[in-house]
Amino acid sequence: MGDPATPPSSELAAMAIVDGASLKHPFSDRVPVRSIVCRPDGGAGLAGNRVRAGGWVKTGREQGKGSFAFLEVNDGSCPANLQVIVDAGVEELSTLVQTGTCVSVEGVLKVPPEGAKQKIELRVERVLHVGPTDPAKYPIPKTKLSLEFLRDHVHLRPRTNTISAVARIRNALAFATHSFFQEHGFLYVHTPIITTSDCEGAGEMFQATTLINEAEKLEKELIENPPPTEADVEAARLTVTQRGEIVAQLKAAKATRDDISASVAELKIAKENLSRLVERAKLRPGIPKKDGKIDYTQDFFARQAFLTVSGQLQVETYACAVTSVYTFGPTFRAENSHTSRHLAEFWMVEPEIAFADLQDDMNCAEAYVKYMCGWLLDKCFDDMELMAKLYDKGCIDRLRMVSSTPFERISYTEAVRLLEEAVKGGKEFEKNVEWGIDLASEHERYLTEDIFKKPVIVYNYPKGIKAFYMRLNDDSKTVAAMDILVPKVGELIGGSQREERYEVIQRRIAEMGLPLEPYEWYLDLRRYGTVKHCGFGLGFERMVLFATGIDNIRDVIPFPRYPGRADL
Amino acid sequence: MGDPATPPSSELAAMAIVDGASLKHPFSDRVPVRSIVCRPDGGAGLAGNRVRAGGWVKTGREQGKGSFAFLEVNDGSCPANLQVIVDAGVEELSTLVQTGTCVSVEGVLKVPPEGAKQKIELRVERVLHVGPTDPAKYPIPKTKLSLEFLRDHVHLRPRTNTISAVARIRNALAFATHSFFQEHGFLYVHTPIITTSDCEGAGEMFQATTLINEAEKLEKELIENPPPTEADVEAARLTVTQRGEIVAQLKAAKATRDDISASVAELKIAKENLSRLVERAKLRPGIPKKDGKIDYTQDFFARQAFLTVSGQLQVETYACAVTSVYTFGPTFRAENSHTSRHLAEFWMVEPEIAFADLQDDMNCAEAYVKYMCGWLLDKCFDDMELMAKLYDKGCIDRLRMVSSTPFERISYTEAVRLLEEAVKGGKEFEKNVEWGIDLASEHERYLTEDIFKKPVIVYNYPKGIKAFYMRLNDDSKTVAAMDILVPKVGELIGGSQREERYEVIQRRIAEMGLPLEPYEWYLDLRRYGTVKHCGFGLGFERMVLFATGIDNIRDVIPFPRYPGRADL
Repeated sequence: MGDPATPPSSELAAMAIVDGASLKHPFSDRVPVRSIVCRPDGGAGLAGNRVRAGGWVKTGREQGKGSFAFLEVNDGSCPANLQVIVDAGVEELSTLVQTGTCVSVEGVLKVPPEGAKQKIELRVERVLHVGPTDPAKYPIPKTKLSLEFLRDHVHLRPRTNTISAVARIRNALAFATHSFFQEHGFLYVHTPIITTSDCEGAGEMFQATTLINEAEKLEKELIENPPPTEADVEAARLTVTQRGEIVAQLKAAKATRDDISASVAELKIAKENLSRLVERAKLRPGIPKKDGKIDYTQDFFARQAFLTVSGQLQVETYACAVTSVYTFGPTFRAENSHTSRHLAEFWMVEPEIAFADLQDDMNCAEAYVKYMCGWLLDKCFDDMELMAKLYDKGCIDRLRMVSSTPFERISYTEAVRLLEEAVKGGKEFEKNVEWGIDLASEHERYLTEDIFKKPVIVYNYPKGIKAFYMRLNDDSKTVAAMDILVPKVGELIGGSQREERYEVIQRRIAEMGLPLEPYEWYLDLRRYGTVKHCGFGLGFERMVLFATGIDNIRDVIPFPRYPGRADL
Repeated sequence: MGDPATPPSSELAAMAIVDGASLKHPFSDRVPVRSIVCRPDGGAGLAGNRVRAGGWVKTGREQGKGSFAFLEVNDGSCPANLQVIVDAGVEELSTLVQTGTCVSVEGVLKVPPEGAKQKIELRVERVLHVGPTDPAKYPIPKTKLSLEFLRDHVHLRPRTNTISAVARIRNALAFATHSFFQEHGFLYVHTPIITTSDCEGAGEMFQATTLINEAEKLEKELIENPPPTEADVEAARLTVTQRGEIVAQLKAAKATRDDISASVAELKIAKENLSRLVERAKLRPGIPKKDGKIDYTQDFFARQAFLTVSGQLQVETYACAVTSVYTFGPTFRAENSHTSRHLAEFWMVEPEIAFADLQDDMNCAEAYVKYMCGWLLDKCFDDMELMAKLYDKGCIDRLRMVSSTPFERISYTEAVRLLEEAVKGGKEFEKNVEWGIDLASEHERYLTEDIFKKPVIVYNYPKGIKAFYMRLNDDSKTVAAMDILVPKVGELIGGSQREERYEVIQRRIAEMGLPLEPYEWYLDLRRYGTVKHCGFGLGFERMVLFATGIDNIRDVIPFPRYPGRADL
């Protein structure tokens, strides 16, 4: 390491300035490949500039009988590579040309000969660093690899074109999310991961606990240092009796104060020893139990704790105080689902708005989805082109359509009527359609993909299939819930106006057979200064699937967790 | 709920436009209080406009012998209240004036009589909604409440001035974080919460498991439906023998094919029944064990899984592919700490940069901290004024100083020399100072608060007190680590250049007595296309403490988790 106080050399600083702007990476001496090749002129205007660049070799080949090499170098700042040319005199070429090799180089940008695909290339004068890759061992060689294969190499897969493009698209959607809500005056609230509430009153949850660890520690300790036997305890008890008798005798014999206090001190020690032994004799290996049940008062939080399935109920406490809020964080389901649409750990965006009803909720959700689509078209067009080429040729048109077309809004009752009509017309669904059912994915996709060919908001669902906190409509049969269905993935968003009437929500909790006690804090929001409010949840990975056209949810999150797998 | 297809009435739409810009909340019919009172003119220029506003009554009082009431209404969009005047003819005043009541009102903005504190007030013509609060029961009345008391009411505390200001400051710091890294070309990467890696090779971790739930389900099931007794199994075994004999007899007697296949079918059923009973007889209540140890192959992920203590190692896989990345998410420590500086669940910001060394790391960290301080001064000045008034009168000056002063940079060796000098000069520390110790909080604060009176970056720490992944310096005694110390909280950031040399890091893992196998994927990053890289971690709550001057970390996170407590 150099002296941290030394500023970058003026030579380096000078070579980084182009068109009055710094070409240099702010916190290293490299120029991101993006700043070179993603200009409107493809980088041609930078010819003559001296730069440092670095990245990983995608493909390399020696040319001119080994006198120089072409390297396609990618640094993940954009899907395009930088073409790099190295002469044999500068560096050993056979190492450089291997796929996966890391290079950091300095040289001059030049316009390539006419007819070349690139608009600019880097003529290397100095190789600053080589991180070699043994092609015989590299787990992700140049050949086309399936996404499924790459799931077994999550630590290396971001080096592939697809997974790095997904990373950039995911990043763009995340920042678009923050930008949208911040621009509209929402506060980002960090709801807890570890929770003692169960939002849905159902759903398999992961437990967060230290009980097993503690039990294992204790077990080890008891083996190294066995607990006292009954005989040990009995012996200690006898000692206490004897010491007590000695004290009594000394007192009766009117012994000196010193002798008495000495014997009292000995009695005290014996008593302490006894109570320590009695406590230790109670220790049992295994998880602590009380009345036949696990004793959670001994767990870290002194009660049973879980990983959250949704931040909604908690974020409502902030909406009912600071009005417009959202949470964006990981949520968890311990469901044994092996589908391409489910993860055990996934990210959710959950806004919540006070002084707002279901119509406001739909307006917000629609504006948010449109904003994200427009953002991708604006900031990630090159990555979207890659997705269109490799996975889903309609994905760019889909983003354009969604960002510019008003969403259809129909009631649940109307949606069922349309589906029933379709069945009469010959359409076959696996699941029967009738008023009262929870729409299945096949129904949702038929509505959005076949009937309307655009996003559809279905609202006012039967109360029987929705959660207790959704506002009861005046018909007493439906609740003010809404789902947004989009082509390709079906349900993207689920939301509702929340029940703000204390008596009604209390009755609904009872109707659903849920206990009141765990919801007392939630009821307090209705007891004190209640307000109409609404919110929704967007499954973030669903949005990435929708945008990219990729089929399996395990490929759009960096480190997928599902039954049997939690690599790294 | 109204018809969702109905657009807002033109009357409402009209009253929301002021100075050519919409005053209305984008997804409700209200005007945020901020848009009225946080204008440079204090709102005076809006006089004459008809608006809807809503919020919670901070204080209310009836005046003019009950003919009207003044309400101070806050909606959390800014620390200031909107003064609202309601005539007795419009609404029952005694409910409105109670602290905690929610009101939504429509009226006209007027300039108050001269001498008033406010520059604008709202004369109510219509009350749209009242959410009453019974003052006898409201847990957070108007009287001054301690932050400690409020921790017992986390669901209502965002309605207080302090906690809502902290929410806005925390939100601002979070968005500043994203803005800083996005502006500098970093990708936001979601590292996993559930992990099978232990970053630090130490540290108490929470376990994420379904084993206990599954065991409890099984226990219940075995009670409802007891497992077969040995006699049951024996009887089933006997049936199989008998059926087998019948088949043999029929075959020997050359019975008809139909008779034989009927008896073979019965034998098959008997065998299936036996094997089901044998399986069920193996079921044991309790957590599944194998060879005396917990059998984690039966846990959700088929192995032991934990809640992450840091996303660093995982985010390195993305840095070594797409160059500049950061993670910002919750992390966990199951430490039994009851201090004002520790939480079991807290948020960390962890950037990671490839092609960058320790100096780049310091430059990035310093720029990031400065950016956040400048952002707060720019966007949250009114909240900072509240903090200065209530908690820490120096907090605004501290932000100004940090955002504008270059941080001091000294080596660990130099830091120890300065501390030893201070001791010679009479300064007393609880912990002895000598080269090789991990600096304690008292040493860190003395360096930043007393010696330099500004942020200090200490770099090149002894290798013995730092993690295995930090790059070994040429002296073989120190590693390229750095900590940023700031007044008020001490260590705010810890970072390092990572060891990119395969042989060196392998040796370091062994030296530290850690097993190699769990780090094989991490070593792959050095085996294939290794690159110099660095990164750091910022404890997000520490930054909020530093900014606000609040003393206890439990007051700067919405839902604090610590030993014995995980409310909601």
